[in-house]
Amino acid sequence: MTLITTPEQFKDQVTAAQSAYETSRQISPQQRAEWLNAIAKALGHHADELIELARKETHLDIARLQGEMKRTIFQLQLFAKEIQYGLHFEATIDHTDANWGMGARPDIRRMNVALGVVGVFGASNFPFAFSVMGGDSVSALAAGCAVIHKVHDAHLTLGLRTGEVVVEALKKVGAPDGLFSVIHGREAAEALVDHPLIQAIGFTGSLAGGRALYDRASRRTNPIPFFGELGSINPVFVTEKAWKIRQNDILTGYANAATMGMGQFCTKPGLLFVPRFEKDAVLPLLQQEFSTKKFAPLLSPNLRKGFEAALSKVSAIANVDVLIEGNGAEAPSPTILCTTVSAIKAKPEILELEMFGPASVMVQYDDESELAEIVALLEGQLTCTLQAEADENLSSFVDAVHEKCGRILWNGWPTGVTVSYAQHHGGPYPSTTSSARTSVGTGAIGRFMRAVAYQTFPDVMLPPALQENNPWKIIRRIDGLLAHS
Amino acid sequence: MTLITTPEQFKDQVTAAQSAYETSRQISPQQRAEWLNAIAKALGHHADELIELARKETHLDIARLQGEMKRTIFQLQLFAKEIQYGLHFEATIDHTDANWGMGARPDIRRMNVALGVVGVFGASNFPFAFSVMGGDSVSALAAGCAVIHKVHDAHLTLGLRTGEVVVEALKKVGAPDGLFSVIHGREAAEALVDHPLIQAIGFTGSLAGGRALYDRASRRTNPIPFFGELGSINPVFVTEKAWKIRQNDILTGYANAATMGMGQFCTKPGLLFVPRFEKDAVLPLLQQEFSTKKFAPLLSPNLRKGFEAALSKVSAIANVDVLIEGNGAEAPSPTILCTTVSAIKAKPEILELEMFGPASVMVQYDDESELAEIVALLEGQLTCTLQAEADENLSSFVDAVHEKCGRILWNGWPTGVTVSYAQHHGGPYPSTTSSARTSVGTGAIGRFMRAVAYQTFPDVMLPPALQENNPWKIIRRIDGLLAHS
Repeated sequence: MTLITTPEQFKDQVTAAQSAYETSRQISPQQRAEWLNAIAKALGHHADELIELARKETHLDIARLQGEMKRTIFQLQLFAKEIQYGLHFEATIDHTDANWGMGARPDIRRMNVALGVVGVFGASNFPFAFSVMGGDSVSALAAGCAVIHKVHDAHLTLGLRTGEVVVEALKKVGAPDGLFSVIHGREAAEALVDHPLIQAIGFTGSLAGGRALYDRASRRTNPIPFFGELGSINPVFVTEKAWKIRQNDILTGYANAATMGMGQFCTKPGLLFVPRFEKDAVLPLLQQEFSTKKFAPLLSPNLRKGFEAALSKVSAIANVDVLIEGNGAEAPSPTILCTTVSAIKAKPEILELEMFGPASVMVQYDDESELAEIVALLEGQLTCTLQAEADENLSSFVDAVHEKCGRILWNGWPTGVTVSYAQHHGGPYPSTTSSARTSVGTGAIGRFMRAVAYQTFPDVMLPPALQENNPWKIIRRIDGLLAHS
Repeated sequence: MTLITTPEQFKDQVTAAQSAYETSRQISPQQRAEWLNAIAKALGHHADELIELARKETHLDIARLQGEMKRTIFQLQLFAKEIQYGLHFEATIDHTDANWGMGARPDIRRMNVALGVVGVFGASNFPFAFSVMGGDSVSALAAGCAVIHKVHDAHLTLGLRTGEVVVEALKKVGAPDGLFSVIHGREAAEALVDHPLIQAIGFTGSLAGGRALYDRASRRTNPIPFFGELGSINPVFVTEKAWKIRQNDILTGYANAATMGMGQFCTKPGLLFVPRFEKDAVLPLLQQEFSTKKFAPLLSPNLRKGFEAALSKVSAIANVDVLIEGNGAEAPSPTILCTTVSAIKAKPEILELEMFGPASVMVQYDDESELAEIVALLEGQLTCTLQAEADENLSSFVDAVHEKCGRILWNGWPTGVTVSYAQHHGGPYPSTTSSARTSVGTGAIGRFMRAVAYQTFPDVMLPPALQENNPWKIIRRIDGLLAHS
């Protein structure tokens, strides 16, 4: 069962996926929604079994895994609803217009169609929500694509079993064979990026791994879009006023967000910018917070190695001190480092070093105005967070921050990423390889579609989404104006 | 005036552009629309002067250039309207929801924002509509970007003068200095793709040139999106029945579409698939059509050289015959070549050789079913066209064709590309480098934007597009449903 996918098996899977895509590309969103809901139901049915597999392979606790399973099932159901609303088709109808300003306009109708077969790489840190049937897979299926999913080695048994559950669920409701399948092994992973029938890649992982695959996808004879969610440090900026009024609340929130899931979140706050403080003023509260928490081993030995290397690198930077030292146990307690804005301005490398695990850095500033200088030095981030008071006008600061990230939070913590219509989980490079797109929320579907226009077509020959009587009852733009059926 | 842009000048232009972008990124769509309309007005004011410059440099006739100017002005005005409707912001508001299926949802609001400074490469074949103030420039400005435009060498004097007109018009209405500027010369062009502040490239041109720049953009430390519209052969498929009923009409339409603008259109029909015919049955009509046309020199000596090389290459393919031989004059008459589907199936290279100029190939088939085999061999195209009768059911053929192109026409000719809401001018690689996106029509604006989400923000700190009372009166999605203000 855990054998590596062979090149022959992989070729067969791609052929089957392409055929499944072609068979099903014109089905109604109602039909496709049934398939997504069937997967959701099957995951629910097998939840206990899958959660137990996940617990063994990831060391994540049951409550967290149950929450993640709930999220994964909800995501399938939400996307099933979303494709019936139909906004992702961006169906647009321009009727013939003899008086069109540049000269008579023919009847022309455009919609988004699925790309074809899509490759998805699962993440190590979310065994359900960003893995086999996570955000990338569900958005590609919702778009109408077939999916080949590369299971992450960190939870291989779970991944393969989840794959079986999904395939069985799709079979039961009559979806074509091959619409979804999993592969594993490095060779198959590279073949996934290279195969001419693969039309796009969804990826969640490290900057180094992601960039290598992005380069591979871009070098193809026919380059394909690579939607990689890579790394992020997620700075949190605390104003002088907020620190004065809410120091303890902020420290509690920080202690929680920085160590949630053992700090193994791409949205972990890696830098907390606060006014200069005395150690004694913050240490007891942080220590107390950590003393109430249970720690667990990191997701995998590989990840642990990477975390320790990054921690050493950041610790070795001049003027970086240890505020709280982790115990280095198998289930390690968190490390909080400490430095100053002046030190960063002198040598900004700390802004580029993500420590994926239970560690974060508190950065002290002398004057709030220094924060704008830090923002200017930032690389692209998934999130930036402001802790400020309601009567503070930070408009120009927010303006500067929005250049650097995909989500800005006001008095919150970035670690929760709700799946909704407005969610944006993305950001300028290197946080992602495609800043326009999101990997969380209903907006994620559009990544796996492209547009096709039909000019002066007989109604009966048009795809249903563009036929005059709107058989799918989707939302469309007609002669410039949005219209419900 | 025609001096090459120096590296120092270029740096100054980027700095000014970035500053102009930052100054203007939060202005209202109404204000931005005024700027676009001011450019439109200035072009109208200088139309005669610019058209005369264009005529001298491109050999295109006055009527064509007047039409193109009309299109260019209309495009600016349409985009000015479009940004006030506001769909390009994709403003999406999810209010707090304690009962959200995966757990309580915070208030989260997303919108598209401008990318920053964008580089645009003008095309040789449309001195107005795809040049200095063509589709790429206007969509980037509409998105809220600043634009640096690389003028095409084939109409340098016109390009520089158009740049002056645009800059002056923007200055008059108070747009920030540097929001738009032009450069020329190869060194500056490469610097444009490389500069860290450039956030995206719009390009229309050859496959070789476009791919080289795409690779350059992808290799950057921070890769940027490269929206390249490259090459296309635009096959036209004629059914047996249509050929029987409308042979003469089809030949007339073909003769016209293949030679319009001296065949220097990216949407020129390069291949016409028809049932096997006797030469004498088609030759007289084509010859008569051509005899009524006026020919002109090609756009530039370079382009002429490229056209002749491509024509030689295609002519030298086994089983490619000459049906009508062009006269090779300075203003050359068109060449129509002739081959068979069997020959293409044996050696499909003709499907990959664009002849940019007055030449096209008629391809004879023995049985209509062979057309599906040709579609399977096609590379990505901007357009594919079907000439068929209303009672023919070609659903599965259309299904196959839609995999290969961005626009499908039924009983039309691909050479007219209207600027409208539903237009899609794009297609799978190599017709473009980004099949999801269009370079013509209002959809083109989205290429130069990325999303940002704001979580639990005080209303007053939100961008106007996301404030509760919708001060810009744009269309938005609220708690899942689209709503007018």
